[in-house]
Amino acid sequence: MPNPTAAILVIGDEILSGRTRDANMHHLAGELARIGIDLKEVRVVSDDHAAIVAAVNALRAAFTQVFTSGGIGPTHDDITADAVAAAFGLPLAVREDARAVLAAHYDRSGLDFNAARLRMARIPEGAVLIENPISAAPGFSLGNVHVMAGVPSIFQAMVASLLPRLTGGQPLLSQTLRIDRGEGVIAEPLAALAAEFGDLSFGSYPFIQNGSYGSNIVVRGTDPARIDAAMARLSALAAALG
Amino acid sequence: MPNPTAAILVIGDEILSGRTRDANMHHLAGELARIGIDLKEVRVVSDDHAAIVAAVNALRAAFTQVFTSGGIGPTHDDITADAVAAAFGLPLAVREDARAVLAAHYDRSGLDFNAARLRMARIPEGAVLIENPISAAPGFSLGNVHVMAGVPSIFQAMVASLLPRLTGGQPLLSQTLRIDRGEGVIAEPLAALAAEFGDLSFGSYPFIQNGSYGSNIVVRGTDPARIDAAMARLSALAAALG
Repeated sequence: MPNPTAAILVIGDEILSGRTRDANMHHLAGELARIGIDLKEVRVVSDDHAAIVAAVNALRAAFTQVFTSGGIGPTHDDITADAVAAAFGLPLAVREDARAVLAAHYDRSGLDFNAARLRMARIPEGAVLIENPISAAPGFSLGNVHVMAGVPSIFQAMVASLLPRLTGGQPLLSQTLRIDRGEGVIAEPLAALAAEFGDLSFGSYPFIQNGSYGSNIVVRGTDPARIDAAMARLSALAAALG
Repeated sequence: MPNPTAAILVIGDEILSGRTRDANMHHLAGELARIGIDLKEVRVVSDDHAAIVAAVNALRAAFTQVFTSGGIGPTHDDITADAVAAAFGLPLAVREDARAVLAAHYDRSGLDFNAARLRMARIPEGAVLIENPISAAPGFSLGNVHVMAGVPSIFQAMVASLLPRLTGGQPLLSQTLRIDRGEGVIAEPLAALAAEFGDLSFGSYPFIQNGSYGSNIVVRGTDPARIDAAMARLSALAAALG
C-alpha cells in the first residue's frame, strides 16, 4: 500500500517579505519522513483570505493530509481559522471547551481574558482541537486539514500532539555519500544505477566548498537492505573515479 | 500603478524530505521587496515532471514573474528544463551559445565536457540565457518564467544577473517595533490603527524569549512618511501599555 501523502501550507506575509526565514516546514518535513507520510508539496501564501481559501481547497483535494502553520493568534492579521472554515463552508464560533482552556490559562497567568484573546476560541464546527501545551490557544483538525500556530516552539508542540493520531506508512530512510567531485563526473553511471534500483530514489545535490565542487548523493527508500545494496554499488562507483 | 507580482517555485526532493533547509526563497524574497516586486506565493514541489509542469502553468498564469530554483544540473534527477519546456509546449535542444559557454568553462578547468554536462546546454526554444558566473551552466528566462540553479551561491549570482532586466515597482519598506508583551494586550488598539492606516499593512509576530511573550509589530508600505506616522502612533500605544 502506498504511503499517505501530505502538503504543508505556511501562511504569513513575514516569510514572503523576506523578514523571516521559515523553520516550520523544515521541522515537519523531517517528522513526516520519520512516520512514513510522504510530503509532496509546500505552499507559502500571504495573509489574504481568498489566497488561503484557494490553497486549502486545492491541497485538501490533492493530498491525504494538509498541515497549516500561522495566523491563529489574537491580532487582526490572524485570519486562518476564518479562511479554513470558509474553505469547508462551515460556521466558525467560540467553542466552550476552547474557551475554558484559555480562561484557565489566563487565570493562572494573571492576564486579562479580553475580546482579542477570545478570538482564539473560535473553532470551525465539527473540528477536533489540537493541544497547545505552551500558550493554551488550541489548533484544530477539520477533516484532513490540521491548523497550527506559526511560532516555531508552539508549532512543534502541536505537531507532537497531532502526529500520533495520524496513520503513517513506511518511514522514508536515506543514506548519503559525499563525493568530492562535480556532479558531471558521476552523472552517467549514477543514472544507470538509478534505473537499475527503480524502487529507490537517487538525488544528487551539488555543493561548492572552498572553491571546489562536490556532490552529496542521497539514496532514499523504505527497504534498508535495498538501500545498503545501492550504497555498496555507489561506493564502488565513487572509488573507481579515483 | 500596482507593483508587479511574483511567485517562487522551489524544485527539490531534498527540501520535502527534510534533508535540506531552503535558503533561496528567503534570499530572493528580500531582493524582490527591495525592487518593488510583490512576492505573493512560494511553492515547493518534488522532482516530478507532472508536478513541475502543473505548478509552472498555474503560477505563470497568476503572477507577473515566476522564479524557479533547482533541477538544472547534469544528473538524471535534473528535469526542470524539460518540464518548463513541456509547460510551454516548446521544444528543448542543445543551443550553440550555451554549449560554447560550457565548452570554454570545461576547457579552462581541464574537465571533460561529457554527455551529462552537455545536458546543461539544452535550452527551450526562444528562451533568453541567464548568466552563471560561478559554474558557467546558464539559467534561462522563457516568457515570465526564470529558471535558476538550486545551489545557493549560484542561485544568488543568477538572481543578481537577472533582476536588473525586470521591471520593478515601489520598494516595500518596513519598520518594526518590539513590544515585550503578548499579542493579546495590543491586539485591539492595533486593529484600530491598522484600519485607520489602510494603505499600510500591519503584521504582528509573536515570540517567546526566556519564557516570556513578546510581539514584533511590523508596519509595511511604500510611503516612508506614512510609515513614520504609523510608527509614532504605535510607539505611543506601546508606551501607554506601561
